[in-house]
Amino acid sequence: MDAIVPQDRPRHEQIAVRHHQPPGQDAERSFKHAHVLVQRKGLDPLGRQKVGGAGDQQRIGGAQKLFHDPGKLRPCCECVHGVAMACDERGSLMGMNENVSKPLDRLSAELAGDMERVNALIRSRMASRHAPRIPEVTAHLVEAGGKRLRPMLVLAASRLCGYEGEAHVLLAAAVEFIHTATLLHDDVVDESEQRRGRPTANLLWDNKSSVLVGDYLFARSFQLMAETGSMEVMHILSNASATIAEGEVLQLTAAQDITTTEDTYIQIVRGKTAALFSAATEAGAVVAHADKTVQQALFGYGDALGIAFQIVDDLLDYSGSSTTIGKNVGDDFRERKLTLPVIKAIARADATERAFWERTIGKGQQDEADLTTALEILHRREALDASRADAIAWAERAKTALLATPDQPLRQILSDLADFVVSRLS
Amino acid sequence: MDAIVPQDRPRHEQIAVRHHQPPGQDAERSFKHAHVLVQRKGLDPLGRQKVGGAGDQQRIGGAQKLFHDPGKLRPCCECVHGVAMACDERGSLMGMNENVSKPLDRLSAELAGDMERVNALIRSRMASRHAPRIPEVTAHLVEAGGKRLRPMLVLAASRLCGYEGEAHVLLAAAVEFIHTATLLHDDVVDESEQRRGRPTANLLWDNKSSVLVGDYLFARSFQLMAETGSMEVMHILSNASATIAEGEVLQLTAAQDITTTEDTYIQIVRGKTAALFSAATEAGAVVAHADKTVQQALFGYGDALGIAFQIVDDLLDYSGSSTTIGKNVGDDFRERKLTLPVIKAIARADATERAFWERTIGKGQQDEADLTTALEILHRREALDASRADAIAWAERAKTALLATPDQPLRQILSDLADFVVSRLS
Repeated sequence: MDAIVPQDRPRHEQIAVRHHQPPGQDAERSFKHAHVLVQRKGLDPLGRQKVGGAGDQQRIGGAQKLFHDPGKLRPCCECVHGVAMACDERGSLMGMNENVSKPLDRLSAELAGDMERVNALIRSRMASRHAPRIPEVTAHLVEAGGKRLRPMLVLAASRLCGYEGEAHVLLAAAVEFIHTATLLHDDVVDESEQRRGRPTANLLWDNKSSVLVGDYLFARSFQLMAETGSMEVMHILSNASATIAEGEVLQLTAAQDITTTEDTYIQIVRGKTAALFSAATEAGAVVAHADKTVQQALFGYGDALGIAFQIVDDLLDYSGSSTTIGKNVGDDFRERKLTLPVIKAIARADATERAFWERTIGKGQQDEADLTTALEILHRREALDASRADAIAWAERAKTALLATPDQPLRQILSDLADFVVSRLS
Repeated sequence: MDAIVPQDRPRHEQIAVRHHQPPGQDAERSFKHAHVLVQRKGLDPLGRQKVGGAGDQQRIGGAQKLFHDPGKLRPCCECVHGVAMACDERGSLMGMNENVSKPLDRLSAELAGDMERVNALIRSRMASRHAPRIPEVTAHLVEAGGKRLRPMLVLAASRLCGYEGEAHVLLAAAVEFIHTATLLHDDVVDESEQRRGRPTANLLWDNKSSVLVGDYLFARSFQLMAETGSMEVMHILSNASATIAEGEVLQLTAAQDITTTEDTYIQIVRGKTAALFSAATEAGAVVAHADKTVQQALFGYGDALGIAFQIVDDLLDYSGSSTTIGKNVGDDFRERKLTLPVIKAIARADATERAFWERTIGKGQQDEADLTTALEILHRREALDASRADAIAWAERAKTALLATPDQPLRQILSDLADFVVSRLS
C-alpha cells in the first residue's frame, strides 16, 4: 500500500497502483499490472469500470468474504477492501483519449457538492428500522461504487436550468433507488452471478431478498418523489417505471425470437436504459421550473443519450475485444439476445444465413465455431457498421436536443458526454 | 350446464350447482357435491373461497390448460371455464351463519356501481401496448376473482366521508394493483404453486415474468395515484409500500427464528396485511377531504382490521379443521413460520417444550407426530385462546376507531365486518 508510485502519472493512476501493486514489484511494473487487471475487468460504455468501490466493509460482510474466496472469484488485488476502489476512477486508466474521457470528470467536479448530499441521502434512506437484511443488501449494491450517472443527470439538468433549491437532491436519490431496484430484480431475472465485478445479491443472499429489497427501494424512491412535492415529477417517474418494467418483459419475450424488429429493440432499449435517463433529465428540468420547451429538450437529450449508450454496449459485445470491453465477446450471442447488430443482419440475411440465425439464436443450437461465423456474417452484412452509424446518429440527436436549453457550461459537458458515449467505437 | 337446480337455494348456490354438476347427477346431489368441493378448497378469513372466478378464457390461456390437466391439478368441475366461478360467491356456501356473512354482501351491494368502474379501470390499466405477456399474467391473477376487499375498503371509506367525486375509483384500482403486485412477488418468494386454488403465475410462466409483471403493476399503481392529484395519497401509499416490503423482508429473516417476539410478529403482520388495509381506508378519507380526526380514525380501523384478519388466518392454521379452513392444518408449522400461537407458546415454554420448538421450528427436524405434539403444547399453554383473545381485541379496536367517523349506514357495515373477521373463530 505504500509502494513507490510513478509521480508523473495522473492521481487516479497513482491510486490504482497503490491498490494493485503486488508484493515485490516496482511501481512502473505494478502500474502495468494494474492496467492489465483493469482491462480484464468489466467496463461500461462510459469507460468506467464495473468493479465496485470500497463500500462499507462492515455492512457488506458476506460479499467481501466471497470476494476474497479465490475459489469463487478472483480478488482484484491484495488491498484491504478486497475490491479495486481506484479502478473505479473515471476510466482514464483505460488508456482512452484524455479529451474524450473528460466529460464525466467535469460533470463530477461541477456537481460535487450536490452529489455529496445525494450520497448522504441515499445512505440514510436505504436503512430500515425493522429489517436489518435491507441495509445489508442495499449497501452491497448502492455502496459498490456505481457510476451514479443517473443522479448526475438529474442534478446537471436542474442546475443547467438555473435551479437553486433542494428538490433535485431528493429526485436524484429517487432515480438512483429506481435504478438500484431494477438492478436487483434484473439479476434475479437474468440469474446473474456478478454485477460490477462483485457477486450479485441473489447469489450472496437469495432471490427472495433481491426481489423484496428491490420492492423496498421502489417504495423508498416513491417516498422521495412525493417529498419533492411535484405531481409532475410523480407522473414522469411513474411513467418511466412502467416503461422500464414493460421493456424488461418485452426483452424476456423477444429473447430468442429472430423476428424481433428494430422498433421492438428500441422499445426494449428505452425500457432498459433510456427511460430512466430521460426521466432523470426531464424531471430535473421540471423541479427547476424550466419552460416546457426546455423540459422537452432535456427529455429528448436523455432519451437519445440512453439509446446511444445501449447500442454501444450491445455493439461492443460483438465488435470489442475481450481485453478492452472487459467481458467475453459474444456473450449476447451465447445468451441468444436479439440486439441491434443481429437484428440488422437477420433483416439482410440470405436463406443460409437465416437458417444459421434460426439455429443458433432461435433454437439455441450452438457450437464453438458459431461465434466466428456470426461475426463473419455481421461483417459481411455490414451490420456492425450500420449499428455504429445508428449509435452516432442517436448521440447527434442528443446533442441537437441540447440546443434548446440554456447556454451554460454544463450544456457543453452534457454535449461532450454524448460524444464520449460513442467514442469507444472509434 | 343446464342442470335442474334446486330453486329454493340462494342464487349463488344455484350457480354453483350449475357449474359443479357432474354428468348424470341430480341437482340436489350435485349441490352436495359442489358443497364438498368448496369445502375442500382454500378459504380465507372472510369465509370467501380462494379459488378463482371465471376469468377471461382467451387471456388466461395456459392457466386454463394446466387447470384442466388432471395430471397437474385436479379440475374443480367440468364447467367450460374450468374454475369454479360460483364458488367465489361470498362464502355463504360454507354453511356459515347468514347473519355474520352479510357484511361483505352488504358492502358489495352498497358499492356495486363504484366497483364496476374500478373493475373496468383495472382491466384497462393492466394492459400493455408493447408486451403481451403482461396482460396474460395480470389477467390470470387480477381476473381470478379475488375478493377485491382492499378496493372496497377505499370506496367504503371515501363514501362514508360523503365523497361524491371520482378519485376514489383511481385510488381503489391503485390499491388493488399494489396488492396484486405483492401477490406476484410473494409467490416467487414463497415458491408457491397455487394461489386462489389456481396455479401461480410463476408456475405457469416463470419467476422472471412474475417479478417483472409485479414491477409493472407497482408502476401502474403509482401512475394511478399520481392521477388522483393528491400528494397526501402519494405519501400514504408510498409509505405503505415501504412497510409492506419491509414486513416481507422481516418475515424472511424471522422465519425459523424462535426468538421472534410478538412485536416483530405485529410488524410482519402490518407489512403483510394491515399496511395496505390502513392505507386504503386512510387514503379513502383523504381523497374525500375528511377531517384529520376522521382520517386517523379510518387509518386506525384499517390497521386493526388487518391485524385481526391476519391473526385469525394464522390461528386457523392450528385451530381449524381441514374441511372448514380448506387447507391442511399445520402448514405454517411445517413451513416453520413463527406465528402468534407459537410465539406465545414459546414465551410460556418449559425446557422440554423449548427444546421441542427449537428442534421442529428452529432446526426443521420434524416427524409425523410432531404436529400433534405442537397442538398439545399450544392447548396446554393456552396459546390458541390467548391468540384468539388478541384477534378479538384488535377487532374491537377497529370498531372503536369507527366511532370517530360519520354515523352512516356504511359505518355499521364496516363495524360488522370487523366482527365477521373474527366470527370464524367461534
